[in-house]
Amino acid sequence: MTPEELARSVARGERRALARAITLVESRRADHGAQGAALLDALARESGGRQAIRIGLSGTPGVGKSTFIESFGLMLTAQGLRVAVLAVDPSSARTGGSILGDKTRMERLSRDPKAFIRPSPSQTHLGGVARRTREAVALCEGAGFDVVLIETVGVGQSETVVAELSDVFLLLLAPAGGDELQGVKRGIMEVADLIVVNKADGDLKPAAQRTRADYAGALRLLRRRPQDPEGFPKAMTVSALEGGGIDTVWSEIGALVAWRRENGHWDRRRADQARHWFLEDVRQGLLAELDAPANRDLLEHMARDVAAGRVAPAAAAQELLTRLER
Amino acid sequence: MTPEELARSVARGERRALARAITLVESRRADHGAQGAALLDALARESGGRQAIRIGLSGTPGVGKSTFIESFGLMLTAQGLRVAVLAVDPSSARTGGSILGDKTRMERLSRDPKAFIRPSPSQTHLGGVARRTREAVALCEGAGFDVVLIETVGVGQSETVVAELSDVFLLLLAPAGGDELQGVKRGIMEVADLIVVNKADGDLKPAAQRTRADYAGALRLLRRRPQDPEGFPKAMTVSALEGGGIDTVWSEIGALVAWRRENGHWDRRRADQARHWFLEDVRQGLLAELDAPANRDLLEHMARDVAAGRVAPAAAAQELLTRLER
Repeated sequence: MTPEELARSVARGERRALARAITLVESRRADHGAQGAALLDALARESGGRQAIRIGLSGTPGVGKSTFIESFGLMLTAQGLRVAVLAVDPSSARTGGSILGDKTRMERLSRDPKAFIRPSPSQTHLGGVARRTREAVALCEGAGFDVVLIETVGVGQSETVVAELSDVFLLLLAPAGGDELQGVKRGIMEVADLIVVNKADGDLKPAAQRTRADYAGALRLLRRRPQDPEGFPKAMTVSALEGGGIDTVWSEIGALVAWRRENGHWDRRRADQARHWFLEDVRQGLLAELDAPANRDLLEHMARDVAAGRVAPAAAAQELLTRLER
Repeated sequence: MTPEELARSVARGERRALARAITLVESRRADHGAQGAALLDALARESGGRQAIRIGLSGTPGVGKSTFIESFGLMLTAQGLRVAVLAVDPSSARTGGSILGDKTRMERLSRDPKAFIRPSPSQTHLGGVARRTREAVALCEGAGFDVVLIETVGVGQSETVVAELSDVFLLLLAPAGGDELQGVKRGIMEVADLIVVNKADGDLKPAAQRTRADYAGALRLLRRRPQDPEGFPKAMTVSALEGGGIDTVWSEIGALVAWRRENGHWDRRRADQARHWFLEDVRQGLLAELDAPANRDLLEHMARDVAAGRVAPAAAAQELLTRLER
């Protein structure tokens, strides 16, 4: 099947074609890289600029991310919407087993014909994960999904990467004492559009409400962002387990998206993101020259001379740059 | 004066030659870049592998960094040692005025003929600051300084950069309640060899001792590092103002350095650092191709097409890479 044929199957919304297309863009083989680019290019034409709502979701282990995604996803499919779930987990050493893992932890959603769940690609390099996830998002979008959820555990810098992939960013939290407010990294607070305190059920309900109030207070201390209507970013409580508040999350997202579309922020963010990923691809492409076997050998050889003190780092670098094979 | 002549003057320990050499390596002019590399190369031959003890020093504003450096530096020069002080401050928007600033805040040390104080180069790009500071350190080392102090305010990632430039890393803290333990970034705790709690004088003495004990406890929770003898990393108190404990900092550094030299860690760290900076220079050199005027125009032109949605980021990046002028 040519990339163009695969693109047509993806655009028709065929799930197996989509899975195959994602596998293609996740591949590290050089010939797959060219095919993946051709596929994405063809799909962009086939799908005529379809746009999903891309929702980034970050939360540390234990906050109930899977339960939230299952509950949120099932609510959307019940409304007739198609939902794709992608995971970004740069720290993951999981391999094929993760497919089972992700499908097990979202069992009902994974059996829903309107849902598509794709586990995290198993590799540790964040830059690579970012590119592959971005392309998987584009494939889901081209396949006509209405909502693409991009999930990250929020360790290291993955939430920044996910923010660069999303239209709307959700931070999921568990109820906690006020002290733990400091535990959320400043960087995450700055990209969050909605702060969702989960587990607002049973004994934890009062704690969840207090936590929500704490974060609402903290959000008021942050500088107003131009891309936000009055009242955003917003803190709210949900019970992923019992379903309480899940529909409100969706209606708040809807209100935010409508405002941003109307005020030009949606298109501007998409344009900025495209520009960002273009520059990032150019940088990675340049650095990839160092991975060519001849260059890698030369680099390793010179690095040994540098480490042994036979030549200064800067002088060695200048020499290497003139000797690179291109 | 040719780079080789300048190198000879630097190697003889001439202060004005050193200042001029640092200005040369800090310059962004392309021809200066080549001259700087030639200078460093010649100096490496002239100085015959002289090594200073490179001490990285991090501390947030208000902990008394300047007072500590002045007190520590004067103790060293009183012992007949020559001390250079360099600053890394990526967030600084300071320009020429900082020379006055740094010399004013370390007034006695700046008038000491055995000391050399160089303010932070005024630029915001951390990568550039890192390279220039590293070369300034090499120049001070080649000029025969016994100790090179590299100071950073420890915002962002500058302490990681300074750790990659140092043999020994000091974290300077002010007395505080136990709660503020969380304020130190994990990354800094992991590179610190000595945690020095300043202001152990007057009313603050008990608080300084408590803070020291808190950090000593926290250090015991961290995994033992292969490059540490028994008892390191160590937490201690000093009074930079009154001089108490300053000599102990120096004797602890001496004990640590002796152990690391004896056990091969000193040489290995230097070798690893040289390798690191070589790879970093190679990467920066490759990315610098994008700054050539013809390439910059092409990049900007294509970025606009990408932002407008006329071409996909990945496809545009692939095309750009084939069209780069080299």
